[in-house]
Amino acid sequence: MTKRPEISRREFVSSAVSAATVTSLPFGKLAGFSGNNPTPLSTAPSSAMSSEWKDQGVLNLAKSPYAKLRNVPVHAVTIASGFWGARRQTNVEKSVPSMEKLLEANGRMDNFLRLAGKSNAPQRGPVFSDSDVYKWTEAAGFALQSGDRPDLRANTDKLINEIVAVQEPSGYLNTYYVGDRAKDRMTPEVQRWGHELYNMGHFLQGAIAYYRATGDRALMDAGIHFVDGFLLPNFGPGPEKKPIFSGHPEIELALIELYRTTGDKRHLELAGYILQGDERIKVPRHGYVYHFCGIPFTSRTHLEGHAVRAMYACCGATDYYLETGDQAYWKTLNTLWDDLVNHQMYVTGGVGARSDGEAFGDAYELPNFTAYGESCAAIGNMMWNWRMLAATGEAKYTDVIERALYNGINSGMSLDGTLYCYRNPLAFDPSSGDHIRNPWYDVTCCPPNLERTFASLPGYFYSTSTDGLYLHLYDNSLLDWHLEDGTRLKVLQKTNYPWGDTASITVTPEKPSEFAFYLRIPGWSDRTQVTVNGKAISGVTAGQYLALRRRWLPGDVVSVKFDLTTHVVEANPRVVDDYGRVAMQRGPLVYCLEQLDQPEGIALADVRMNVSQKPSSQFHEEFRGDLLGGVVVLNCVGAVNDDSRSRSGLYFRYNRETSKNLAAKLTLIPYYAWANRAGTPMQVWTPVVNG
Amino acid sequence: MTKRPEISRREFVSSAVSAATVTSLPFGKLAGFSGNNPTPLSTAPSSAMSSEWKDQGVLNLAKSPYAKLRNVPVHAVTIASGFWGARRQTNVEKSVPSMEKLLEANGRMDNFLRLAGKSNAPQRGPVFSDSDVYKWTEAAGFALQSGDRPDLRANTDKLINEIVAVQEPSGYLNTYYVGDRAKDRMTPEVQRWGHELYNMGHFLQGAIAYYRATGDRALMDAGIHFVDGFLLPNFGPGPEKKPIFSGHPEIELALIELYRTTGDKRHLELAGYILQGDERIKVPRHGYVYHFCGIPFTSRTHLEGHAVRAMYACCGATDYYLETGDQAYWKTLNTLWDDLVNHQMYVTGGVGARSDGEAFGDAYELPNFTAYGESCAAIGNMMWNWRMLAATGEAKYTDVIERALYNGINSGMSLDGTLYCYRNPLAFDPSSGDHIRNPWYDVTCCPPNLERTFASLPGYFYSTSTDGLYLHLYDNSLLDWHLEDGTRLKVLQKTNYPWGDTASITVTPEKPSEFAFYLRIPGWSDRTQVTVNGKAISGVTAGQYLALRRRWLPGDVVSVKFDLTTHVVEANPRVVDDYGRVAMQRGPLVYCLEQLDQPEGIALADVRMNVSQKPSSQFHEEFRGDLLGGVVVLNCVGAVNDDSRSRSGLYFRYNRETSKNLAAKLTLIPYYAWANRAGTPMQVWTPVVNG
Repeated sequence: MTKRPEISRREFVSSAVSAATVTSLPFGKLAGFSGNNPTPLSTAPSSAMSSEWKDQGVLNLAKSPYAKLRNVPVHAVTIASGFWGARRQTNVEKSVPSMEKLLEANGRMDNFLRLAGKSNAPQRGPVFSDSDVYKWTEAAGFALQSGDRPDLRANTDKLINEIVAVQEPSGYLNTYYVGDRAKDRMTPEVQRWGHELYNMGHFLQGAIAYYRATGDRALMDAGIHFVDGFLLPNFGPGPEKKPIFSGHPEIELALIELYRTTGDKRHLELAGYILQGDERIKVPRHGYVYHFCGIPFTSRTHLEGHAVRAMYACCGATDYYLETGDQAYWKTLNTLWDDLVNHQMYVTGGVGARSDGEAFGDAYELPNFTAYGESCAAIGNMMWNWRMLAATGEAKYTDVIERALYNGINSGMSLDGTLYCYRNPLAFDPSSGDHIRNPWYDVTCCPPNLERTFASLPGYFYSTSTDGLYLHLYDNSLLDWHLEDGTRLKVLQKTNYPWGDTASITVTPEKPSEFAFYLRIPGWSDRTQVTVNGKAISGVTAGQYLALRRRWLPGDVVSVKFDLTTHVVEANPRVVDDYGRVAMQRGPLVYCLEQLDQPEGIALADVRMNVSQKPSSQFHEEFRGDLLGGVVVLNCVGAVNDDSRSRSGLYFRYNRETSKNLAAKLTLIPYYAWANRAGTPMQVWTPVVNG
Repeated sequence: MTKRPEISRREFVSSAVSAATVTSLPFGKLAGFSGNNPTPLSTAPSSAMSSEWKDQGVLNLAKSPYAKLRNVPVHAVTIASGFWGARRQTNVEKSVPSMEKLLEANGRMDNFLRLAGKSNAPQRGPVFSDSDVYKWTEAAGFALQSGDRPDLRANTDKLINEIVAVQEPSGYLNTYYVGDRAKDRMTPEVQRWGHELYNMGHFLQGAIAYYRATGDRALMDAGIHFVDGFLLPNFGPGPEKKPIFSGHPEIELALIELYRTTGDKRHLELAGYILQGDERIKVPRHGYVYHFCGIPFTSRTHLEGHAVRAMYACCGATDYYLETGDQAYWKTLNTLWDDLVNHQMYVTGGVGARSDGEAFGDAYELPNFTAYGESCAAIGNMMWNWRMLAATGEAKYTDVIERALYNGINSGMSLDGTLYCYRNPLAFDPSSGDHIRNPWYDVTCCPPNLERTFASLPGYFYSTSTDGLYLHLYDNSLLDWHLEDGTRLKVLQKTNYPWGDTASITVTPEKPSEFAFYLRIPGWSDRTQVTVNGKAISGVTAGQYLALRRRWLPGDVVSVKFDLTTHVVEANPRVVDDYGRVAMQRGPLVYCLEQLDQPEGIALADVRMNVSQKPSSQFHEEFRGDLLGGVVVLNCVGAVNDDSRSRSGLYFRYNRETSKNLAAKLTLIPYYAWANRAGTPMQVWTPVVNG
């Protein structure tokens, strides 16, 4: 409990790191590396303590005893032009800068400046507004991990200076519980609703991301000061300390990542204490459900309550397992994960069925129109599965990550990077008056969360293991990293994924090396073909990692041909809202219908899918470069039910024979791209024509 | 605006009215009139002003120029043993007395006593708690309209004395906006949320019901003092008065019923002003939706916002039309009614799809598990349709009344009369942890609302018109009243409705008389047979009133044979949650499945209806006297889908062939009787077996 932090200020360079050029590539001539990408800060691996900061991934699992996989740093993967390249370019060039301006315009920085006597503006925004600034700082940190951007660096430094300037000598930092409200700090009620620790969790995450980008410790030292100076001496188990109720889980995962950065075991133990809950703070029974904290995490039997809280709690609990190997945690995590994929997750990877409490519903309660599917919750789902993947190396987690990333997360930001979804429903009618994409929310948790996710994306492409390398995600990209034995390695992916069905992967170790290259075979790809240097590989199984164990020579080429047949998907019949309906999925992308793509006069609510033919032949796939930034659309002959017009009213005598369907040409677009044109009805799940 | 009230205190007997015996009946030997019913206060018609109070119905439409039908007083109809007789006996003997005790135990009367210096208890309950006392007073008033009950009379008098004792000299009366909160009275924000006028609306309704039962003016005079002394001089149009925002519509319909009682046109005009809205109080756009007031009622195009607010507003607006004939109102009312029955109403007559805001959803948004269907909203629906019926004499409104009354309202009270539903969902799983029936709610609007509705029920059985008599509802009962031309008339119904398919109706005018007897042919009864004195009548049409125009002689017998074939009902295919499903209805009763009635081991979520046979032969109807107070159950051979067990998980490749159904004997019970045994899953809508 009193162990000294393993790192200390003097071990780190706090000045700005100078930009370095990319190490010369053996495949510089290949398309997709046109120089559009900013120069990485450094791509050289380093064992020197003084630059260890730069080689820590999204999670620093280098010393985590129960991690099977270890992260590679964000800077080690360069995503070139392509599906994610375009999204990430928009993110860093438009979304991140414009969000900073919006945070300032909406008084979020004035909240800090006022405390330093530099602003007269009143407090603005909800109690968790500080966290939005910190999440933005994390987005900036991840963006800078992919390469220096002097303007962004300067702006972030300015923000950080303004933030740390108002930290109190005790280490406490919060712009809401000041003045008359200071007396309420960390009272049980404010721990429950006030988001003080949630804010500081995001503070720590932002600080760590920025530190890993720049080596600049200013924000991280302030975070450590909060934890070591304010939290640890005053809060925790034992009669001499006050209890903690997490309120909105987030501090748990942040404390463990701090532990991974500082080596200070007290940070891990504090997280464990919070995950356990402290009986001294009592809340009504439904509070333990809603807040998803306050009782032992290991007593949980299903996902419930506020979806983002539950997902962040699961992240923290998985982090705790990765460090401790506590089997009670592992058992609970598996129980909750089974609940997620068997009862609670939308086909888009979104979670949170109910607007009321932004919450998980009952098992199979997955309404489409009223789906909440908060962007933050889908991100939390991806974050959790990333940790479960690290613990196991099992591809079922990567399938969830990909499902959430390409669909329920990607839908959260408009294609132009300036409008955001808070909710991500699977059916929508603009006549409800609901505005689904907005530039700003007073509760603006989702926009910077999306920005930090897209900025951190390179860190999710690969992992290392003691015996080799895992490839998780496909897109035009270059990995420049090393195996865990220190062998330098480059891996170049050339692909048109997810539109095209091939990926060419050039593996270039610095010298011929024996290791396993684990290639993810997506769960949706029924018949995947893999060759190494042209020679077919057997034993390829959907939904598993294909272990390619061999002596790899520089320039070895792995070719993958995915099965991109459009799948007609049905839900478990217990899902009331999907009953009698199907959704279409092609590769990782879930599709939807927008009314404006259908023949005039057709109401989307009356559209039917005609899936009596063989699935493989019924969709005409067409790449439309002019549409929605370039997408493959699915064209098919479906039907329109004519009953609604001929039988107005709600209730009729049942008569199967009266149902009347007329043929209609239908066009589906990827779900993530919905609501980027005029307001129009949308739906993912469409009834099938009665046979 | 300054017209003197037409009635004044001196015209009325304020002492307790002595009980009188029922006028000797020519059919006293018939079953169902065993003397279980309390003695009516008086059944003698009277034209004397001094007792006019006792002959006013639920609504006093005697002078309403745009009413086609006029109410008959509650006392004029005695409901004997039978479906409603049993419910009403429980209501008056158990529910009404126990609710009074609960109101007292939960401090609702202390709120008044404290202001009179007779209690030290703190204020308890939400801002609208006064209304629950008033609604209970209304229930007592209606109960007393059916006959004296000295205990109930004494208890109600005591309550009334305690209430009127704390009315302020200005006329203002409220137990919440007192002391430090008095400064907030009738401020725009408190008009929006504080329910001051909502409370006083229920005060007026309670006062009028009690006045019509007893002639006692104490409560009504206090109500008039509030309106004439506090409201009219200070609030209303014009720069010298402050604006009104209704907040929770209720005062509108109450003011118009007050106008019908006082004749003071200012009361009607004030209601019209409130229905119009006053631009001087501005609320956010969604506030006009949620509160369903503040903008001209005639600008409404669809039902939206808080369902009870919307229903009460529609009641007030229909009342306004009945008095003024304003065609803009009539047009809007018809538009909203079409929206109700074509887009917004559950098959149970419940309304309000969303828990969030207790609100109407979008068109066709009618989820079953998460249905709100507040008991108060279904009651509001019945109240509104009662007014629309009065305006038109059209049976389509009575069909809605019957649907709501027998199902979505009747479900709101447990069979033993001590537990109440706030929500009335159409599917339920107790594993959600939701307690659906409770003895008390801190927001206890529904229980006394149900009690006043059951107590007032005799007033809904008949109406008079200039040319005769309308029969709306069927049950063992005796009407003892007169036609509008003054001809005394008794009508005896003998029936086992809704279980049995016949009704024998004996019509006994005091002398042979020519008039039209309008017999309601329910919309669900396809082939109804009607005879008069054994002679078949032609032209019987479902969903219409059958006009029996003839010279009626004392003792003429109308026999009705309903078509009680169980109907398999499907919903408009745009109703997502009912898609591919059916509901069963027999007579006015919607049926449901409770899991505990099905074979062991069957999960209700997996049950399927097999409706490929002819509807008429597939249900075995069985009266079970031992079950749920005596109900007809429906037995059938359905199926159980085996997919869920064989395919765990949420999403699968669509394959119609894999669906596997096993035959299973199923039993359905009437929906209103659900959740009266052990906690068990329930559903109204069940998937049909794929053909």
